[in-house]
Amino acid sequence: MEQELPSKLLQAAVDELSRLPGVGKKTALRLALHLMKQPQTEVERFGRSFISMRNEIKHCAVCNVLSDTDTCDICTNLRRDHSIVCVVESIREVLCIENTQQYTGLYHVLGGIISPIDGVGPNDLKIDMLMERIAKGDIKEVVLALSTTMEGETTCYYLYKKIREFNIEVTTIARGVGFGDELEYTDELTLGRSIKNRQPFTLN
Amino acid sequence: MEQELPSKLLQAAVDELSRLPGVGKKTALRLALHLMKQPQTEVERFGRSFISMRNEIKHCAVCNVLSDTDTCDICTNLRRDHSIVCVVESIREVLCIENTQQYTGLYHVLGGIISPIDGVGPNDLKIDMLMERIAKGDIKEVVLALSTTMEGETTCYYLYKKIREFNIEVTTIARGVGFGDELEYTDELTLGRSIKNRQPFTLN
Repeated sequence: MEQELPSKLLQAAVDELSRLPGVGKKTALRLALHLMKQPQTEVERFGRSFISMRNEIKHCAVCNVLSDTDTCDICTNLRRDHSIVCVVESIREVLCIENTQQYTGLYHVLGGIISPIDGVGPNDLKIDMLMERIAKGDIKEVVLALSTTMEGETTCYYLYKKIREFNIEVTTIARGVGFGDELEYTDELTLGRSIKNRQPFTLN
Repeated sequence: MEQELPSKLLQAAVDELSRLPGVGKKTALRLALHLMKQPQTEVERFGRSFISMRNEIKHCAVCNVLSDTDTCDICTNLRRDHSIVCVVESIREVLCIENTQQYTGLYHVLGGIISPIDGVGPNDLKIDMLMERIAKGDIKEVVLALSTTMEGETTCYYLYKKIREFNIEVTTIARGVGFGDELEYTDELTLGRSIKNRQPFTLN
């Protein structure tokens, strides 16, 4: 599809779509032509949804998860156990764990994991924010629920070293998740069991 | 991903993306989170591109292709052969044929093919518009370049019956394209050769 499209408006929409990860030029054209067939009001709503999301969404002031309010629904829910904090990479893992319905504590979204190859160091993550939460003294346990990749293990180790200065339990999800697997693609049963059977974090 | 997202704004964007053909809930979430990481101005441009496209794009008054102007660049190009019209299903086939650089005539975009199973009859397509073009008397040849599927063959037959009332040549692209294949996924060499070696349309 080297050909310039006969319409610059169509071309612009195709270019925007093909900038999305995993979307090629042919798929982008197919999606743009699909949108052309939809009613104007629906395409209007489609386009505005991204602008509203990007401009109006916030990060929870407590746990850093994406939220419409200053503090998210999970952090303000008094029926949840506020003494346990589960540390995850992104909102995706929050959703995965919530789906298992096996966890009633709070979360802390790091916003990434330590990955020198991608230029992500500890200061690029919400680790200081986590330490401030812990320093307040209400948290009794921190569950490290990061992917079992090299970067995940490195981040766990880094966090463990920082958290053990406080006198609280540090656990990690049970190793039911295959090594090298991503949390996001683990089935709910395995993930649910592994967060329930979480184990003390050890340096082995 | 049955879980409601903690942000309604994010949920709205994910819902919009997952309505696109071939995009599931997980992909939609991945794309929405990708957009969240982009600068506000880029997401603004992303969202607006679809709204502008949908609201401002036109169909060429001559050939029905999507165009920013009342008459498209192909129809206004005087170096092209205005005596030949290639009939195609959609703008996608126009782009495929243009890519081969083997065709210098004009096009006519039907906007679909006759498909009783999908409830698409001749009156849903731009066939009358094609007949009016032919009735003007400047067209010497009509090339039927529809996919070699059952619906494509039916549409070709229908068009052939209507066009043969006029004293003009009706051709079809050479059968280099495998039967049952979609034009869109044919390699350029085969498609280029088959439009160059187009054959008189016969009822065999």
